[in-house]
Amino acid sequence: MSDTAPDFASIQNAAQTIRGQAAYTPLLESTALNETLGCRLFLKAEMLQKTGSFKFRGAFNAISRLTKEQLAKGVFAYSSGNHAQGVALAAKIMGTKATILMPEDTPAIKVANTKGYGAKVLTFNRKTESREDIGNAICAREGLAFIKPFDNINVVSGQGTVGLEIIDQLAELGMQADIIAAPCGGGGLVSGIAIAAAKNSPATKIFTAEPENFDDAARSLVAGTRLSNSGDHSSSCDAILTPMTGEITFPLLKQYGVNGLVVTEAEVFEAMRIAFSYFKVVIEPGGAVALAALLTGKTATAGKIIVAVGSGGNVDPALYCKVLSSDF
Amino acid sequence: MSDTAPDFASIQNAAQTIRGQAAYTPLLESTALNETLGCRLFLKAEMLQKTGSFKFRGAFNAISRLTKEQLAKGVFAYSSGNHAQGVALAAKIMGTKATILMPEDTPAIKVANTKGYGAKVLTFNRKTESREDIGNAICAREGLAFIKPFDNINVVSGQGTVGLEIIDQLAELGMQADIIAAPCGGGGLVSGIAIAAAKNSPATKIFTAEPENFDDAARSLVAGTRLSNSGDHSSSCDAILTPMTGEITFPLLKQYGVNGLVVTEAEVFEAMRIAFSYFKVVIEPGGAVALAALLTGKTATAGKIIVAVGSGGNVDPALYCKVLSSDF
Repeated sequence: MSDTAPDFASIQNAAQTIRGQAAYTPLLESTALNETLGCRLFLKAEMLQKTGSFKFRGAFNAISRLTKEQLAKGVFAYSSGNHAQGVALAAKIMGTKATILMPEDTPAIKVANTKGYGAKVLTFNRKTESREDIGNAICAREGLAFIKPFDNINVVSGQGTVGLEIIDQLAELGMQADIIAAPCGGGGLVSGIAIAAAKNSPATKIFTAEPENFDDAARSLVAGTRLSNSGDHSSSCDAILTPMTGEITFPLLKQYGVNGLVVTEAEVFEAMRIAFSYFKVVIEPGGAVALAALLTGKTATAGKIIVAVGSGGNVDPALYCKVLSSDF
Repeated sequence: MSDTAPDFASIQNAAQTIRGQAAYTPLLESTALNETLGCRLFLKAEMLQKTGSFKFRGAFNAISRLTKEQLAKGVFAYSSGNHAQGVALAAKIMGTKATILMPEDTPAIKVANTKGYGAKVLTFNRKTESREDIGNAICAREGLAFIKPFDNINVVSGQGTVGLEIIDQLAELGMQADIIAAPCGGGGLVSGIAIAAAKNSPATKIFTAEPENFDDAARSLVAGTRLSNSGDHSSSCDAILTPMTGEITFPLLKQYGVNGLVVTEAEVFEAMRIAFSYFKVVIEPGGAVALAALLTGKTATAGKIIVAVGSGGNVDPALYCKVLSSDF
């Protein structure tokens, strides 16, 4: 186990740490949908995770490894919502205080839930202020432990437990995945999965999935160097609109041969409807990009065993109904 | 194991039979919701079952026990939709043909899905025709095996596996349920759960849940004899609008001391919204009655460990959006 990068051992340790705290989420399958697609598609249902997204895994793993002194002072995180909720609940369980900095335009459900877990919520303007600068200032002033959403070894290790579980769940069915695709913001989830798969399921191809205009990971993986998004666009996929992949995560994505898939907003909405009809789960736009990519064949899937991670389900009901109401 | 009534052994056998075919559905919990309620509430997520409801369990168990001669001729079922889908998929897996009789006013999604599993669908008028008579005539003419939705020992045994799983899942957490409530149409699900609990979790109180005006089970359990519904009312809970409990199931409900809970349509819709917000699962009206009953304290829940079975998620998106859009 390395101190400078997450590895298979740190993911195994994270799995021990989160056991009994995080949900072991099901791998859903639809006979009817498989027939339509001509493959076996599994949905790793992380919207059923505590706090409604995979983020609880990394947050709990990271906070549980803080010192007593750190826990006495409290933790800080910036987040568009899912990491915020994960940190808020993990902090509560660990008996420490969470201060969360959220964009002013965060979906109401995510703000309300974060406060509901007892966190103190501050807001900032996504276009004019730097969350990094605000965060550093708060942490310096108050002595808080900064739980970064992806550039944190323990967070990536926690997210990697999603990969361990997928591999184990398929092994119980006597299968190995040909493809695992997962939503990518900063890359913590996908890099963690890639580390787990490299060891336990080495033939599996790993893909990032992103919405159009926020395809920094896909472009960066082609270029071999970290590129950022222009910032001129908007998207419903609020959970994964990071400016670029992380300093820790991007080298891992490269090292493990991850490739990038990109989907349109319309494809994301169709994936949300498919999840409603066939899997009976609520999936938020940012959580549906990997499902969208596999449903629309952004990489060849015929005859294969493919897994999409549905990474979260924290969507405002008004948007959800707008999505469900179109095209049915 | 008895030939005339389901019992604990027949449920254990069913669990063996459906293993690898039916999903072992998760028991979901929400930290935030528990705090609001002041108890530990678990949702047994049978909307995540194959075909979107628990009905696949009983259908598969029953069809897999038919003789080769019976399988060669095919099976028949009448159903408002969920049993239809369960029978259709189970028949397909077992290599036999399914003929399904459905009410003309069945939600479109349930008809489409049933046909999607390869079944032949016939329709009848719920108000003017007897499904029993039509079914008996078809079965006699074509030699089909009649898979009744609840008055069938193997069906009840299959549904009882829901109870076995709940008890096992709680035992893994070191817990035993104080209360298990499940939706009740003909009573197959609840009577199966009651048998399982009587043996493995004897202190657990079992409840049927029904919508107002279709509370035949609740009234029958008070009266000690089978009573029927008037037929003058309508309800969104299409999955559980049976005229009365079954000949096999009602004596079991009585024998195991089951009691009845009744909820309003508004309470059902609120439970659907709670399932969306806190559990991220899609639940249909008839599948939400037990959750509704426990959320609204139809029996005392404070400080207790309580389980609601969410029995299905096959709801048309238009109705779902109507429910989500109100009162948020």
